[in-house]
Amino acid sequence: MREDGSVTDSLHDTSIRGFASDNYSGVHPEILDALAAANGGHQIAYGEDDYTRRLHEVFADHFGRDVAVFPVFNGTGANVVGLQSMLPRWGAVISASTAHINSDEGGAPERVGGIKLLTVDAPDGKLTPDLIDREAWGWGDEHRAQPLVVSITQTTELGTLYTPEEIRAIADHAHGHGMKLHLDGARIANAAAALGVPLRAFTADAGVDVLSFGGTKNGLMFGEAIVVLEPSASEGLVYLRKLNMQLASKMRFGAAQLIALLEPAADGGDGLWLRSATHANAMAARLRTSLEALIAAGEAPGLGFSQPTQANAVFATLPAGVPDRLRERFRFYDWDAAKGEVRWMCSFDTTEDDIDAFVAAIREELARA
Amino acid sequence: MREDGSVTDSLHDTSIRGFASDNYSGVHPEILDALAAANGGHQIAYGEDDYTRRLHEVFADHFGRDVAVFPVFNGTGANVVGLQSMLPRWGAVISASTAHINSDEGGAPERVGGIKLLTVDAPDGKLTPDLIDREAWGWGDEHRAQPLVVSITQTTELGTLYTPEEIRAIADHAHGHGMKLHLDGARIANAAAALGVPLRAFTADAGVDVLSFGGTKNGLMFGEAIVVLEPSASEGLVYLRKLNMQLASKMRFGAAQLIALLEPAADGGDGLWLRSATHANAMAARLRTSLEALIAAGEAPGLGFSQPTQANAVFATLPAGVPDRLRERFRFYDWDAAKGEVRWMCSFDTTEDDIDAFVAAIREELARA
Amino acid sequence: MREDGSVTDSLHDTSIRGFASDNYSGVHPEILDALAAANGGHQIAYGEDDYTRRLHEVFADHFGRDVAVFPVFNGTGANVVGLQSMLPRWGAVISASTAHINSDEGGAPERVGGIKLLTVDAPDGKLTPDLIDREAWGWGDEHRAQPLVVSITQTTELGTLYTPEEIRAIADHAHGHGMKLHLDGARIANAAAALGVPLRAFTADAGVDVLSFGGTKNGLMFGEAIVVLEPSASEGLVYLRKLNMQLASKMRFGAAQLIALLEPAADGGDGLWLRSATHANAMAARLRTSLEALIAAGEAPGLGFSQPTQANAVFATLPAGVPDRLRERFRFYDWDAAKGEVRWMCSFDTTEDDIDAFVAAIREELARA
Amino acid sequence: MREDGSVTDSLHDTSIRGFASDNYSGVHPEILDALAAANGGHQIAYGEDDYTRRLHEVFADHFGRDVAVFPVFNGTGANVVGLQSMLPRWGAVISASTAHINSDEGGAPERVGGIKLLTVDAPDGKLTPDLIDREAWGWGDEHRAQPLVVSITQTTELGTLYTPEEIRAIADHAHGHGMKLHLDGARIANAAAALGVPLRAFTADAGVDVLSFGGTKNGLMFGEAIVVLEPSASEGLVYLRKLNMQLASKMRFGAAQLIALLEPAADGGDGLWLRSATHANAMAARLRTSLEALIAAGEAPGLGFSQPTQANAVFATLPAGVPDRLRERFRFYDWDAAKGEVRWMCSFDTTEDDIDAFVAAIREELARA
Repeated sequence: MREDGSVTDSLHDTSIRGFASDNYSGVHPEILDALAAANGGHQIAYGEDDYTRRLHEVFADHFGRDVAVFPVFNGTGANVVGLQSMLPRWGAVISASTAHINSDEGGAPERVGGIKLLTVDAPDGKLTPDLIDREAWGWGDEHRAQPLVVSITQTTELGTLYTPEEIRAIADHAHGHGMKLHLDGARIANAAAALGVPLRAFTADAGVDVLSFGGTKNGLMFGEAIVVLEPSASEGLVYLRKLNMQLASKMRFGAAQLIALLEPAADGGDGLWLRSATHANAMAARLRTSLEALIAAGEAPGLGFSQPTQANAVFATLPAGVPDRLRERFRFYDWDAAKGEVRWMCSFDTTEDDIDAFVAAIREELARA
Repeated sequence: MREDGSVTDSLHDTSIRGFASDNYSGVHPEILDALAAANGGHQIAYGEDDYTRRLHEVFADHFGRDVAVFPVFNGTGANVVGLQSMLPRWGAVISASTAHINSDEGGAPERVGGIKLLTVDAPDGKLTPDLIDREAWGWGDEHRAQPLVVSITQTTELGTLYTPEEIRAIADHAHGHGMKLHLDGARIANAAAALGVPLRAFTADAGVDVLSFGGTKNGLMFGEAIVVLEPSASEGLVYLRKLNMQLASKMRFGAAQLIALLEPAADGGDGLWLRSATHANAMAARLRTSLEALIAAGEAPGLGFSQPTQANAVFATLPAGVPDRLRERFRFYDWDAAKGEVRWMCSFDTTEDDIDAFVAAIREELARA
Repeated sequence: MREDGSVTDSLHDTSIRGFASDNYSGVHPEILDALAAANGGHQIAYGEDDYTRRLHEVFADHFGRDVAVFPVFNGTGANVVGLQSMLPRWGAVISASTAHINSDEGGAPERVGGIKLLTVDAPDGKLTPDLIDREAWGWGDEHRAQPLVVSITQTTELGTLYTPEEIRAIADHAHGHGMKLHLDGARIANAAAALGVPLRAFTADAGVDVLSFGGTKNGLMFGEAIVVLEPSASEGLVYLRKLNMQLASKMRFGAAQLIALLEPAADGGDGLWLRSATHANAMAARLRTSLEALIAAGEAPGLGFSQPTQANAVFATLPAGVPDRLRERFRFYDWDAAKGEVRWMCSFDTTEDDIDAFVAAIREELARA
Repeated sequence: MREDGSVTDSLHDTSIRGFASDNYSGVHPEILDALAAANGGHQIAYGEDDYTRRLHEVFADHFGRDVAVFPVFNGTGANVVGLQSMLPRWGAVISASTAHINSDEGGAPERVGGIKLLTVDAPDGKLTPDLIDREAWGWGDEHRAQPLVVSITQTTELGTLYTPEEIRAIADHAHGHGMKLHLDGARIANAAAALGVPLRAFTADAGVDVLSFGGTKNGLMFGEAIVVLEPSASEGLVYLRKLNMQLASKMRFGAAQLIALLEPAADGGDGLWLRSATHANAMAARLRTSLEALIAAGEAPGLGFSQPTQANAVFATLPAGVPDRLRERFRFYDWDAAKGEVRWMCSFDTTEDDIDAFVAAIREELARA
């Protein structure tokens, strides 16, 4: 044991933060504490433990009594397994072409799920009933993969936000055609924080049938959950989770994290999920407004924005060369390199100083451009 | 914060332990410490972090310079993804019918992997060249799924152990027929501890091509790894891991656990992997010898053993009714209820007192039978 | 055009017949005639033609009013698509290990169907309730592929025959456990001919839920059909047939063959299906009795039989070397070369002279052994 | 036997023809004759017969010495199995969104093939290097399905035609990025007839690696073939065909049709494939020019064309109501009902009288509009 009481050194520089992704961040200290509290003794494996049992109550408090929760390892797993449970073998899913299931999951929905994706271009990442109708046809025609689920992402991969009313309109439209509604909630907490409404307001109460609840991007070590809001919309999840290799043996540790994230704070204040998401959103807003102030002051030549900032993401455009120089100081990703479009993500551990230093760097690099 | 400094209460009774499975246990304290040390700051997601980088060195120290390591979430994932990487779409795997891939993975190898299993009954869970030959035929015949991989488990699902020589004989036999050798090492540390040899002695040095390295049953929170020992035996793992939904975003936390498990102790003594496995094996031996002493003393009427105890498992037979009564005091599973066969597993946190209390309970229940 | 009126020469010697398989034979002349009659003009593709419509009536006459018929290309297609329609994604099928779905379909059920097979050794190729029970367990356990269908073959791959009562017992047993019953009827006509009962006596009336109706081995050019006897036992076949690449565009030609096979003869006599199967069975019986007479006369040293001859197959054992020498004169397959076991199949076009010549050849080769 | 010598009546009106699809037509008489000639005697099943052997020579004459041919049942089977043989499990295919593999195969490429499709909108159904580049990126990124094959259709689903030079440009572009080129040749004969070049001029000689050779739409009863032009571009077809349920037992009948289609005419003239395709194309041209004459004469108010007529398809637009009224007299399909766009296909058995009667009907219905 070392002088500071630790037995293990960090291998990395814990002072470095950037804007690449909210999964570059680590684990919130309250989550680490919850993991330690869940340790010790023996608990039944594969989900019959005390933590997973408690987890169902926690989710019921947020989403309603009929909810069923299935913790899984990661977001791709939550999406693919959840969608499989909503679809017969001949089903297809209508989504935006920018949807994570289409663009970032290595073909897992198709290859593992056997799911055909029917994609629609949506400039802001958001589907509408009209956009859905471009692919919502051909039921009964055996030559066409049957569109039976609509999948939306909240907040979207472009940092935009559906209002509860927009989701309700999509749900009604989908249900009216005999389709179900799936929501990829990898950043669902950021959406709730941005909307200022409970989680159920834009999910269970807006007609969503099944959702992927994201925890990892909001300060968990790992852990997402498939949440079934409409029992008749999903079948066989207990088997599908296992056969799709998403069943953790020591599930108590996934459940304990989600409990710590979602249960009310001990002092009666906001739960960790909301505090962390609100903070990440605020940091993105600070970044956006600071940059807008630079623009207004004429100090940001060539800087623009390609999407509104509605949660914890800022999509900006920069002059050629600036992204690469800026990246020498702060990590982030190009979104569309050909257009000079970049994406900056804020997370629970982003600080005001981080934002201010980044804004200063942007100003400097633009000045040199 | 509470008086004891914790912010979170445990939801479970941390004093209860049993003999149901080595994945009923929690996380070794050194692993929790390593998780905390890996926290803080930002690290590149999906495996380009400092921990995953270091992990490759740690595995190279154990298995040799050419090793490639792919952390995944769980054992089923390690097996299915590893086997997929070894096989064309028309390949089949020869395994014992008791193999985990055949009996306990919900059909994941077939459904997700598209892999046909050609199974052979092996009374002690161990394949031999002769047993393999029952299914090793038909190459070139398009009507027969092509046997291209042999998969063995070390230690087996029946608690038995292959010697390095036995594995070498299987590897030579498989390779001689153009087949590759896969090893499911969910309890690989228990095997090394039991054999008293380095990990590579019965893997890389014995002709194993690809293995699933198990950490969860040996005190990790989660985390297994696909380990490629023969580079030419595996293809595309970087893609297969992702598309099979086994790629963790915050991979540093899986890697940090495996590093803490496998690296040499700070004092130069045995690594945690070996200390924990040796202890679990010793507890199983204590259970076995204690029960054998009871039998010798005539104090265990109806007690027998159905497999040798070579690592951390004891397979026993009990008179009708005894398993259920005993289970009211200690959790464990029936293995073959029709035969009165039960399985008792020991883990890193099993204590001598646990064993002694269990032996006493067995004696009492047998006396009442 | 040539003198004989044909425009095309045969590329093969049409006088050669053997005993290798009932799919080495060609097409019954009545089937060729039916194909010509179905030609000409335009018919809606993909099954809305007049022939496919009529086909449903023909099948209803044989199997009952509620029957639904889905013509497909081949037997593997019929089995895999039919089984898929009976199973959720987590389902498994109990079959004999000798079943065609397990041994001869290149892993199609697993790879394409995503179906786990739970196989049982059955020395005569026939399942029984007791044999089924070896794998009929574990419902509700997510780690076990769920046994939800039993599949039997009639006649079996070993030339044996279930009685209607045996099938009824299996059906009752399966249904009693919530499982469905599938029948692979690649040689279903031979079974009906051997039993001397209508097709429905051992299918619809005996509790079979879905069957693969085989035509190719009974004189069709191509063409099998999935026949749903219990409507609630199958879902989505119209989509599954297409997505599994078993939907013919010019379906009228598959349907026309099956109609010609199954409809009553113009003279009121037996339909072609029964005439052809009865003949093939009779040829196998002639072969068997002729050889038994040889044995009784001491003229067949080393000849034995490994299965009863109940339809159109004879399974025999021969001294080493004899099969290969005999094969220089007549084609047939080894069944288990290590045991000297061979399989001789008769078909609709096998003649008495073929049998007699083959028996003579066997006698000669045995004499030289 | 009836007076006309037939034993079987037709169930359908053989005088009716329409413009719905080239697979509504039946079988060319020369093909029926070839089927009869291939009948009789016993031939080895599954492709070791004399016809399949000869088929390889026939294809080699057309496509070159290194060609390998794998007869399959239908076009979806040819496409999916061929593409599978070109791709690792993590591969994706770039195609036009109108491609048959994307729009008309019920999701078979995704579900059975495990293939991700990366689709590009192409107004005339034709890809170009620029269009391909919209999806040709992301190699090495595990989150993106790897684009490793480009698939084009010739003639396209919109009746348009690639020149050999256009295909060469695509092949060079694809190969330059390490991608292979697949060609869906469901109407490959129509393309050759329209281009007036040998089949190999726009396939083997233009850089196509693997193609689906279509026979059914050109007068076969059934039967397509996967044709491997570049041996290194395809692996495992012998196994993939079987496990994908596309292996015919009596393969001689598929092979005999393809031979009759492709071999030179007995009189040294064009082969049947070319005569039939040339005729179908000529009938489409007659339809197009007749209608253009009507338009020029002011006798076709509201009639327009949405695609050029380059082979055997005419894509036209009609005023609302006209398609349905016209369909009471001749069958055809809407292509895009919202736009009044219809598709008219000609086939080997379309007659000049059919065209003239149809043109007259169109004039009448337009006059009533």
